[in-house]
Amino acid sequence: MQAKKSVPQPVKIESVKGGVTAAAGFRAAGIRAGIKASKKPDLAVVCSDLPAAAAGTFTTNAIRASSVDRCESILPSNAVRAIMCNSGCANACTGVQGARDTQTMAAITAGALKIVPKSVLVASTGVIGKFMPMERINAAMPKLAGSLSPAAAGGASFAEAIMTTDLVKKEAAVRVEYGAGAFTIGGAAKGSGMIQPNMATMLCFITTDAAIDSALLDGIVKRVVNRTFNNLTVDGDTSTNDMVLVMANGASGVAVKGRGSASLKAFEEGLFVVCNDLCKKIAADGEGATKRVEISVKGAKTEEDAQLAAKAVANSNLTKCALFGNDPNWGRIACAVGYSGARFSKQKMSIKLCGVQVFKNLQPAEFDKKKLHLLMKKKVVRIDIDLGTGDKEATAHTCDFSYDYVKINAEYHT
Amino acid sequence: MQAKKSVPQPVKIESVKGGVTAAAGFRAAGIRAGIKASKKPDLAVVCSDLPAAAAGTFTTNAIRASSVDRCESILPSNAVRAIMCNSGCANACTGVQGARDTQTMAAITAGALKIVPKSVLVASTGVIGKFMPMERINAAMPKLAGSLSPAAAGGASFAEAIMTTDLVKKEAAVRVEYGAGAFTIGGAAKGSGMIQPNMATMLCFITTDAAIDSALLDGIVKRVVNRTFNNLTVDGDTSTNDMVLVMANGASGVAVKGRGSASLKAFEEGLFVVCNDLCKKIAADGEGATKRVEISVKGAKTEEDAQLAAKAVANSNLTKCALFGNDPNWGRIACAVGYSGARFSKQKMSIKLCGVQVFKNLQPAEFDKKKLHLLMKKKVVRIDIDLGTGDKEATAHTCDFSYDYVKINAEYHT
Repeated sequence: MQAKKSVPQPVKIESVKGGVTAAAGFRAAGIRAGIKASKKPDLAVVCSDLPAAAAGTFTTNAIRASSVDRCESILPSNAVRAIMCNSGCANACTGVQGARDTQTMAAITAGALKIVPKSVLVASTGVIGKFMPMERINAAMPKLAGSLSPAAAGGASFAEAIMTTDLVKKEAAVRVEYGAGAFTIGGAAKGSGMIQPNMATMLCFITTDAAIDSALLDGIVKRVVNRTFNNLTVDGDTSTNDMVLVMANGASGVAVKGRGSASLKAFEEGLFVVCNDLCKKIAADGEGATKRVEISVKGAKTEEDAQLAAKAVANSNLTKCALFGNDPNWGRIACAVGYSGARFSKQKMSIKLCGVQVFKNLQPAEFDKKKLHLLMKKKVVRIDIDLGTGDKEATAHTCDFSYDYVKINAEYHT
Repeated sequence: MQAKKSVPQPVKIESVKGGVTAAAGFRAAGIRAGIKASKKPDLAVVCSDLPAAAAGTFTTNAIRASSVDRCESILPSNAVRAIMCNSGCANACTGVQGARDTQTMAAITAGALKIVPKSVLVASTGVIGKFMPMERINAAMPKLAGSLSPAAAGGASFAEAIMTTDLVKKEAAVRVEYGAGAFTIGGAAKGSGMIQPNMATMLCFITTDAAIDSALLDGIVKRVVNRTFNNLTVDGDTSTNDMVLVMANGASGVAVKGRGSASLKAFEEGLFVVCNDLCKKIAADGEGATKRVEISVKGAKTEEDAQLAAKAVANSNLTKCALFGNDPNWGRIACAVGYSGARFSKQKMSIKLCGVQVFKNLQPAEFDKKKLHLLMKKKVVRIDIDLGTGDKEATAHTCDFSYDYVKINAEYHT
């Protein structure tokens, strides 16, 4: 699948400030509509000045919100203009009325932006089983439409208004330069609990000013999400509402060409950097997290085996409690690999914790327990697992498991 | 599979006191061997005066302890005499030396009881990745063998010595009476964390004085475990060491006959009652549990669908935190059913929490939130789910998820 060109074009990817308004031709805003009891911002829109190609990935949960159904029925599309997103109410498990409300939300947004309802994607996040306070959304929309801004502040207010239990807003953007020109990819995500990899298990909105056909974009998004968000977990619960949506409006004048092209490679790599960065930010802000955890599995027979092993460790409550306690209890990591279903070599499988070899040849390795205990206190903990059966790899993103996860979820308001 | 008899024989199953020594012809004991730093009892033996038929089910974890390998290689067998079990050291992930130690443990027990090593089953539970302190086991064995008793106290000391993070010892026994006579089935189990259904995910030892061939017993044990322990979860972690072992010594003089017989039906039902009771006791004593939770799923297309749905809810951290907080957040239950993979009817699926209808027709049901909050404070909480697609059912056993689960597992000594 590599480009057959005489002169390979070097790709330069650099992080830049901003989120959904980092790319040219996008405006965004987020305001308080009164959906959340906390009175924090809860209604957001990002819109493209030009019709954008758009694609997405969606939760695999069979009970899913009507907003997810609606987006999936529209995408991929070459004529998307806006995404509207509310927080505080998931509008899931709300039956016929919930579905009607989703369509109305698109219509209200379209009316305010003077575009057609079919060009508006809708996303919702918050409590399940509550009806959407439509009159508040209706009342807030004119102000929201009037606040849209192409500045970094517009993107930031969008990122803030989509948060639920998130403690920090999550944005990432890159500028991708290669032979034919430069374009920008930027995004915002929300997610802190009910996070478990399966298509996409939080909300993520990405914009780019590259020009690309939506069918081509669709394939790229699915590949990148599989390498990033699908390897992210906070608590093993796959939500009813989650999706990754990407809008590409072509405002940079740079076109992404088909399979094997240098432009496609550059775009896919840039999208990967943005998604991977947002994954790390969600993991670091996992409910109750005191540290971020990265589990890298190599030496796997297939990428699927690597994913199985990495995700089993990332979902092991016991491992995550030990990480919270800075306890080098590697037996729980080995145990999770054992029940993961991944193929591994009993002779060659090995585990490193914070770079320290703890397990090899199915036997404990000698290590300085006190020193490792101190290393585990860092803000980012790495677990490296070699399955010893091949050359495929995968990385899972998660966080530790603290008292506060329980506190947050025992006291969450229904 | 029902008996084709002209006169059906009524089966009477009554709970009786005791555990592994409730049935005739079994002696047991548990003592302190110094394996645990806490100095609590940690070495136990139950032995049959007669050669017993024995069968078992074993953890599906690919990294499993040599004790599990050894039991599985011996069973089913018609010539088992004893089970020895230590707590405090799992002897898992200990390679060649660990396997040698397991054989030596059988040999030491056989020597003390004057039986052949092949008639001794070995089980271990505790920290993974530690070598067994063989000299302490060797030193303690004569005293342990000398303490064996057929009294209830012998069974109780056995049940106590197999505990790790368990707060209470777990025993159950029934007397089964039917036309041809009466026999007793009794057992003890340990398990509190690293509990997730997959064959058997804790240690459970059951004895009976019924006479039965080991091949027949094997099938019954697998069926009953699938209906009980395989639907039990505390934290979704499948341990490296777990098994259910059943010994039948025939001391009652009552023989269990083949497929379709009244005796088999009576025996299987009695074994189910004992296993189900022990399941409930493990769930109630789950690490950090403040209440026991029973999730009954009916209206399923297949038993597997019912199990999938029940176990997904039982494993949902979010649901379990809400149960701890007495929060009627039924959306998390619906969400877990949605990602469980179980087939259900969107029109007919419904959920009851503590007997109160909370969800029907994919819409919220009206209910008194304060009243339900109070009902949720009980020691046992029931969740009833109707999938609306058939007539199969399953029940999962679990507990809520509290601060103390995190505390116990963050501070557990490696």
